Amino acid sequence: MAVSMDDDVPLILTLDESVSNASAPLDNLDRDELPNENGGSYDIINDPTSPAAGDCCVQQNSAQHNWEMNYQEAAIYLQEGENNDKFFTHPKNAKALAAYLFAHNHLFYLMELSTALLLLLLSLCEAPAVPMLRLGIFVHATLELFALIVVVFELSMKMRWLGFHTFIRHKRTMVKTCVLFVQFIEAIVVLVRQTSHVRITRALRCIFLVDCRYCGAVRRNLRQIFQSLPPFIDILLLLLFFMVIFAILGFYLFSPNHSDPYFSTLENSLVNLFVLLTTSNFPDVMMPSYARNPWSCVFFIVYLSIELYFIMNLLLAVVFDTFNDIEKRKFKSLLLHKRTAIQHAYRLLITRQRPSGISFKHFEGLLRFYKPRMCTRERYLTFKALNQSNTPLLSLKDFYNFYEVVGLKWKAKRNREHWFDDLPRTAFLIFKGINILVNSRVFQYTMYTVVAVNGIWILVETFMLQGGNFFSRNVPWSYIVFLTIYGVELLLKTTGLGPIEYLSSGWNLFDFSVTLFAFLGLMALAFNMEPFYFIVVLRPLQLLRLFKLKERYRNVLDTMFELFPRMASLGLTLLIFYYCFAIVGMEFFAGVVYPNCCNTSTVADSYRWVNHTVGNKTVVEEGYYYLNNFDNILNSFVTLFELTVVNDWYIIMEGVTSETTHWSRLYFMIFYIVTMVVMTIIVAFILEAFVFRMNYTRKNQDSEEDNGIVLEKEISKEEVIGIIELYKRTSAASDTAQLQKIILQMDKYGQMSMLFLGRRSRTKSDLSMKMYEEEIQEWYEEHSRKEESQIPLQESASASQSSLKPLSLRHRSQTV
Amino acid sequence: MAVSMDDDVPLILTLDESVSNASAPLDNLDRDELPNENGGSYDIINDPTSPAAGDCCVQQNSAQHNWEMNYQEAAIYLQEGENNDKFFTHPKNAKALAAYLFAHNHLFYLMELSTALLLLLLSLCEAPAVPMLRLGIFVHATLELFALIVVVFELSMKMRWLGFHTFIRHKRTMVKTCVLFVQFIEAIVVLVRQTSHVRITRALRCIFLVDCRYCGAVRRNLRQIFQSLPPFIDILLLLLFFMVIFAILGFYLFSPNHSDPYFSTLENSLVNLFVLLTTSNFPDVMMPSYARNPWSCVFFIVYLSIELYFIMNLLLAVVFDTFNDIEKRKFKSLLLHKRTAIQHAYRLLITRQRPSGISFKHFEGLLRFYKPRMCTRERYLTFKALNQSNTPLLSLKDFYNFYEVVGLKWKAKRNREHWFDDLPRTAFLIFKGINILVNSRVFQYTMYTVVAVNGIWILVETFMLQGGNFFSRNVPWSYIVFLTIYGVELLLKTTGLGPIEYLSSGWNLFDFSVTLFAFLGLMALAFNMEPFYFIVVLRPLQLLRLFKLKERYRNVLDTMFELFPRMASLGLTLLIFYYCFAIVGMEFFAGVVYPNCCNTSTVADSYRWVNHTVGNKTVVEEGYYYLNNFDNILNSFVTLFELTVVNDWYIIMEGVTSETTHWSRLYFMIFYIVTMVVMTIIVAFILEAFVFRMNYTRKNQDSEEDNGIVLEKEISKEEVIGIIELYKRTSAASDTAQLQKIILQMDKYGQMSMLFLGRRSRTKSDLSMKMYEEEIQEWYEEHSRKEESQIPLQESASASQSSLKPLSLRHRSQTV
Repeated sequence: MAVSMDDDVPLILTLDESVSNASAPLDNLDRDELPNENGGSYDIINDPTSPAAGDCCVQQNSAQHNWEMNYQEAAIYLQEGENNDKFFTHPKNAKALAAYLFAHNHLFYLMELSTALLLLLLSLCEAPAVPMLRLGIFVHATLELFALIVVVFELSMKMRWLGFHTFIRHKRTMVKTCVLFVQFIEAIVVLVRQTSHVRITRALRCIFLVDCRYCGAVRRNLRQIFQSLPPFIDILLLLLFFMVIFAILGFYLFSPNHSDPYFSTLENSLVNLFVLLTTSNFPDVMMPSYARNPWSCVFFIVYLSIELYFIMNLLLAVVFDTFNDIEKRKFKSLLLHKRTAIQHAYRLLITRQRPSGISFKHFEGLLRFYKPRMCTRERYLTFKALNQSNTPLLSLKDFYNFYEVVGLKWKAKRNREHWFDDLPRTAFLIFKGINILVNSRVFQYTMYTVVAVNGIWILVETFMLQGGNFFSRNVPWSYIVFLTIYGVELLLKTTGLGPIEYLSSGWNLFDFSVTLFAFLGLMALAFNMEPFYFIVVLRPLQLLRLFKLKERYRNVLDTMFELFPRMASLGLTLLIFYYCFAIVGMEFFAGVVYPNCCNTSTVADSYRWVNHTVGNKTVVEEGYYYLNNFDNILNSFVTLFELTVVNDWYIIMEGVTSETTHWSRLYFMIFYIVTMVVMTIIVAFILEAFVFRMNYTRKNQDSEEDNGIVLEKEISKEEVIGIIELYKRTSAASDTAQLQKIILQMDKYGQMSMLFLGRRSRTKSDLSMKMYEEEIQEWYEEHSRKEESQIPLQESASASQSSLKPLSLRHRSQTV
Repeated sequence: MAVSMDDDVPLILTLDESVSNASAPLDNLDRDELPNENGGSYDIINDPTSPAAGDCCVQQNSAQHNWEMNYQEAAIYLQEGENNDKFFTHPKNAKALAAYLFAHNHLFYLMELSTALLLLLLSLCEAPAVPMLRLGIFVHATLELFALIVVVFELSMKMRWLGFHTFIRHKRTMVKTCVLFVQFIEAIVVLVRQTSHVRITRALRCIFLVDCRYCGAVRRNLRQIFQSLPPFIDILLLLLFFMVIFAILGFYLFSPNHSDPYFSTLENSLVNLFVLLTTSNFPDVMMPSYARNPWSCVFFIVYLSIELYFIMNLLLAVVFDTFNDIEKRKFKSLLLHKRTAIQHAYRLLITRQRPSGISFKHFEGLLRFYKPRMCTRERYLTFKALNQSNTPLLSLKDFYNFYEVVGLKWKAKRNREHWFDDLPRTAFLIFKGINILVNSRVFQYTMYTVVAVNGIWILVETFMLQGGNFFSRNVPWSYIVFLTIYGVELLLKTTGLGPIEYLSSGWNLFDFSVTLFAFLGLMALAFNMEPFYFIVVLRPLQLLRLFKLKERYRNVLDTMFELFPRMASLGLTLLIFYYCFAIVGMEFFAGVVYPNCCNTSTVADSYRWVNHTVGNKTVVEEGYYYLNNFDNILNSFVTLFELTVVNDWYIIMEGVTSETTHWSRLYFMIFYIVTMVVMTIIVAFILEAFVFRMNYTRKNQDSEEDNGIVLEKEISKEEVIGIIELYKRTSAASDTAQLQKIILQMDKYGQMSMLFLGRRSRTKSDLSMKMYEEEIQEWYEEHSRKEESQIPLQESASASQSSLKPLSLRHRSQTV
């Protein structure tokens, strides 16, 4: 890894071509500023995306240049640690670095995402297309080729960065390359033949989406699903085994009954017991035999008890257990990966002369690359927060907390309690009064009562309507009254608490948006704008506020919001599975079901569409199930959702089967099993997250309310002046302007120091930290034992390592 | 509690009327044999059920008599500890004791159970009765009165034992009394009027069953269900709240569509969204609006995602969490309860002279009452196993392990490895060969292959049959071949391993019974006994043996067997709920649905039963749903099971509703919610048990295979002689006969001592012990702190208490 510093010649030198390529002899430099000999791997770097990098590249000093290079590499290490990128993909030379930087910025990510989405969305326009979006074959094939070429470009950038060897070793990228190749050929074939052939491979397009940088969560989910598969499959086999035994049994028992179509052959028996697994055909499948002999119900009760109530739950238990285990192992490996990243970065930032720690200057240099948008004040506060020992250098032990601290948002702790403290006396008293009113229990409970009354009102009103004209032009007066009350409440709260504090609470935000929607609804009503009438019916959502009343609901809803990102990524994962199945379904079953089809099957009724006259009235007998088809991708998605819900799915299956072959059932059964896996994982996830949080709350019952991580740091005037001095020596004046302001502010209030509060919301990782407190120590020790043989660390660093505790444990977070 | 010894005069003195009632002056007695002054509460006791008590009551010595009394009370304390009976129900005087003893034996329990069952089964014969079991009103009312009178008798015994005050305070008993009173009056009214009125109170009959001693597990389940209710209800409200919001929304959105019957009124909207919660009407409820506007599916997808996939899972999570918590608290309180019981018993068994422990004599006396069937050898071994310090006295610290040790079954450790070791050389070699063969991998895998081939054979055979004559007279040759192979295997295994060792494994037992069944099936086939043909179809069960192959399956199936008792009690709990609902359903809905009823409802098709002629063929259109009725209790149970499975339950609901009133829906909805509670508990239970076991296995990955608790103890010849001496002084010769045999055996082999193995299967409590290792210590300390103020213990005892660890932790159980 540690390539000699003079080996590589930089490839991209857009801003800094004047810099001499050969590094100055080390002895010429100020020895104090010499980077540690374990230094970086590339010579001259240049970050085209980081604005800070542009600013600082004017220095001609080669040592400074070396430093910049080290900062850059350290920042990359830290990024890799954060994103859980394996270190074998670390850029190895200047050429790779340039490609790395090119491929690691949001513009590139967005390009990746949009090409992937474009490819996925193409299936809306390709035959069988959504009618309104149909495009000519030439158009969509060209679009596809274009998107694929962009993907080729992306991949070539990746290859530049990874080098051919690593590229080949990187499994996901290899799969993507193969898929790309196949897609390319197929697109060209389509373009040449001017007709779409059976293109099941389109189902593989989702790989492009999965590989996007922004879809990391989806990749994690997929990994988790695949890891949970082995135990899942074992239990599934048990399930299927019992199914087969019961199918044989059922065939022997019930096939002599000729009025029982469900068990007439072994195949029917198997299929119907599979469907019975989902309860979808339950009482029906039992009825013919039950009518003949009441005791035959025992067969079905035993089957359902074993399969549905026992083994299915066992499935959940096994997945839940595996899931818990995987979550813990994942947390462990992530933690240790971050630790290794920090060690790598640390070795790049210490100097030969002072190997025991990082000085602020170098730390600041690192942050310039790692977080270019961070202002100087925040950089210094981060340094101070990390620096537990209050020495001028940051030890490795301190540096280990990097990830916990760097996310904090720093703000000056205000001495004034309310936003109106600075206003004149009269105004102050008025606002103070409003503040007290708004915070009083009476006010809150009055509002709850109003909301409850409103709820009952809406219910009664709706009940009285019964088929009248809902959206008459005259706005009902009750609507105006309640909206006025909510409006006044909103106004009072905003003025009493200050707009920023008001909106910082999620619940208030919810109140605000619902009131806003209600107001929009009123507008829609008043101006009779039909398309917006749906806003009116959102009114009952106001009632959700009532759930603030009880602690458990607050807990549950808070958990819900915390879970939301993970839930969304799980939903996206499910959608990706949907996409694959939708493509396959469309290729095989498009146009297969239609009104009055499937007359040979047992489910013909559901597909019937008859217009017949009884007396002198036309009666439409509509089975509607022909709507659940695979005619285009949107219909397919709805059909697949219906299959996910499972109820009556066999009607869809039998309908399609009767129009195609018996083997079509395989598609539906496999889909059922796949969604079962994903759904079980979702349930396990919700269970795990919830139980974890509950355990956490129980463990910390005595401690503070969960207000996120909060750190307090004081900066004295001398320190600020010191930093200004430092900056004046090295960089542009713009950086110091903010610091000057702080000094001005201190002077104004006559303070010698200023308090700052760093704040961020608590993440799952913080919770895990606390839950696994004891084990983490063991992991660290085990890890450092392993590490010692691999990466020789500074002695002082590795000595301090074992006594380390994670940040959240040392700083008791404070309620502010 | 500590009543003076001379206060009470014994009431029942059936065997021992000659004993003087006044206790001899204490100074006259051997001071060494004096019971501790914290002694028992009653004077003279007599156990009519315990045979040992009968034997020993001939002693005329009053001190001995006092001791017997203390043994008796200590045994009662220990029983109370084991059964988790509260100590306030402890019999307080001799009269109460007699009643206690009368009410605490298996005959009495059986009487309790059988009266409860009789009362429950009466509903088979009362109108609406099962046709075959219908009894005249006079008959069943008289039977009922008889059963109720027996219950009155049982209650009066209980009152004698508890005393009026405790009786009133005991909630369950009071409820039972009230129900009894109501039932009595109703039974008399029925008898007088000679006609059954609406007797919903019959649903309360299950209380008699729940109160049975044998139904302790059901009571625990019910308690657990009620304890899980508050969080459950909270989330349920959230669920219903969203339902109402969506109902209003759906009403506004879809009621303008007149072809949509599902949302035409707010009530319909509510009912259909409730049914949608169970997915039972899923694609159908969406179809009319979906046909009109494809985007309306969003409404249903959002609704199902929130309600079904999120809140329902949350419900499970909350219940699971509460369940875990309750399980732990329950374990804690049980553990501490047992501990207190042991302390109580201990104080009754120590002497004034030697307050530091229990001598074997007194321990033996206790066991005579606590476990009358235990033989002398086992008593001594139990004493030795408890006695960690090897002193002649058993300290409190040792005695705390009483419950763990007393369940062990002791057997002499045999020196010979196989059962045939004593046979002549030739026979030995033959059997040894068989033994090696049977234990070899080749043999096992050959058998697995045979089973697999058999499985495939059966499948293919069944597939080929396709509606032929299944049960022809000629037995298929394959059947005979496979059965012969299994028979030979059985024979080899039995001879190779010895019948006892063979049958001690659950898997072998399973093999054995399946082979036996297969043989019976063969007989049935050969002799053409029709009613037994079902045995033939059990053949595929042989395949279950294949699951031995993989460890996970062994784990899963072992867990399944371990869970079985709890599962059965949960099933019984569910049945009790079923019973209540069945009675209510029968009272309201009996005879309501019939073929071709419900023509006004939307589900008329399912109830249709038409015989019409198409061409010259008679076609029967049979809806069958009229079979799902409440016409008698058996039908009701099947109907309720169908409602539990949930699929298409709305057809039953709508059918009944259309023939009665709208309010009938309440019955079905409440039933759904109740089963949802019970089912969620069942899922939570399976999850908990499984995850617990998995965690346990993970924690003890390195340690031995789970072979149950095994203890090894050595007895020397001198010890045996010592015990014989002791017995000779006090009791009949029959007790020593067994010990003499041991001495003879020792002499025969020339040993000076003999090894015994104590063995029992591992219970949940043992697992919990190990899981909560650290916490248990805390609980004990906390408990002893509380106790110290309440019950003054011997100083030595309370000092040794804090250093205690549960048995299973000190004795590392050994694999034998």
